[in-house]
Amino acid sequence: MSKAKPVILKIGGSVLTNKTVELEARMDMISGIADQILEANPKNLVIVHGGGSFGHPTAQKYAIKEGFKDEAQIAGFAETHHIMTVLNGLLMDALIWRGIPAISMAPSSYVITRNGRIQHLDMTILKRLLEMGFIPVLYGDTVIDEEIGFTILSGDQIVAYLATQMNAERILVGVDVDGVYDDNPKSNPKAKMFTRLNMEELKNVLEKLGGSEGYDVTGGMRSKIAELMPAVMQGIPVLIFNATKTKHIYKAIKGENVKGTLIEKE
Amino acid sequence: MSKAKPVILKIGGSVLTNKTVELEARMDMISGIADQILEANPKNLVIVHGGGSFGHPTAQKYAIKEGFKDEAQIAGFAETHHIMTVLNGLLMDALIWRGIPAISMAPSSYVITRNGRIQHLDMTILKRLLEMGFIPVLYGDTVIDEEIGFTILSGDQIVAYLATQMNAERILVGVDVDGVYDDNPKSNPKAKMFTRLNMEELKNVLEKLGGSEGYDVTGGMRSKIAELMPAVMQGIPVLIFNATKTKHIYKAIKGENVKGTLIEKE
Repeated sequence: MSKAKPVILKIGGSVLTNKTVELEARMDMISGIADQILEANPKNLVIVHGGGSFGHPTAQKYAIKEGFKDEAQIAGFAETHHIMTVLNGLLMDALIWRGIPAISMAPSSYVITRNGRIQHLDMTILKRLLEMGFIPVLYGDTVIDEEIGFTILSGDQIVAYLATQMNAERILVGVDVDGVYDDNPKSNPKAKMFTRLNMEELKNVLEKLGGSEGYDVTGGMRSKIAELMPAVMQGIPVLIFNATKTKHIYKAIKGENVKGTLIEKE
Repeated sequence: MSKAKPVILKIGGSVLTNKTVELEARMDMISGIADQILEANPKNLVIVHGGGSFGHPTAQKYAIKEGFKDEAQIAGFAETHHIMTVLNGLLMDALIWRGIPAISMAPSSYVITRNGRIQHLDMTILKRLLEMGFIPVLYGDTVIDEEIGFTILSGDQIVAYLATQMNAERILVGVDVDGVYDDNPKSNPKAKMFTRLNMEELKNVLEKLGGSEGYDVTGGMRSKIAELMPAVMQGIPVLIFNATKTKHIYKAIKGENVKGTLIEKE
């Protein structure tokens, strides 16, 4: 039984899916990720993944994030949750058939938010699973909200919550760009990547990114970083790296050198 | 928002799968069940299903029910949970694509047992989903156990727990035989079916079934009934009926007359 601090691995929806085509999974990526996790053979790993072109279009169509407003959203909420279980199932298939002891845990079954922020999340089972050697796999999901009826809980908020509550050793954020840039690297080839940022520098970057409104890579790099700030403040290092590159997830889990942006408190 | 008493519908693993062929789903049954639920348009329904030839063979291979004994079971526990999510996913697909607001809720994420009996099961989210008009869908699953490490939680135990805790209006148990017989109807063509049993009569039947050891239809009719006894004692009627027959699930939900065994307290 292990009681070491866990590592939280976030896998972006842009890594698992083709964000430009609804319901298109990147099966090559999913297989490659499962291969890397098998090889890394991690202890104390929690995986959290995003929704990409599975969860987001349906959630948006029914405005689930904005809360319950009319009956037409009810079927949309159910559809959004289901479609996330389908994406999760593709990743789980790849993990399980390699013999990786991964356990899917849909947040909708045990998380309640209040105005979109996690209010209740009993971690007893998740911690117990980790101690026994399992890899819990969570994901962005539809959830019941005490104030607005229901909403969408993002994978990034889950990552920050688990990391701060369990005082994680590290947070690994796998996206489809190499790290945090001073501008959108997809549209500005001269954008400069930061290899390391402390809290002070991070705040400056956030302000600058806030200014350039178009900068919304991989579900919003700015909101992603803002969500992870409390974990960094608590002293948990965050590595933002490109999970679509060969062996990057393996190296990140192993603590080997990976190109990316390391965010630390000081 | 509805606060009426819920109806609990159990769908046996023998209805959803071909129990004689591992991992063979009965897709015709699954489609038919979803059609009937769409037509019945139920309010306050909770669905619980079994594992059939999906969950049982893997659980048995790794002796998951007997608790944690060695490391080799860890991958088996994960595999058993995953395969149950796959079976659940087939049913959920059929429900969701008909626009039925069903929400899957894997018990492994929020139930803890003690020596195989439910110890912790927070029903806040499930009740809230019901009130909002959703149909929660639960199933037999692998769970963490406080005493023996982990175990298998049967769909029948979940049904009895939910029914007694929420004081259900009715429990509908869909199996692949017409009801409770005085002997195994599959091997003894002279077996007599009971159309109605009260607690006193039920106890006599259980004693008799206990004597004829071979009588283990649909995952054990005897253990199934024994599990539901506390609900009957509480005054909740239980209808055991053949869910493989045309429109039986529709009629059972609607409260229409269906061939089967009705078990009532008095």
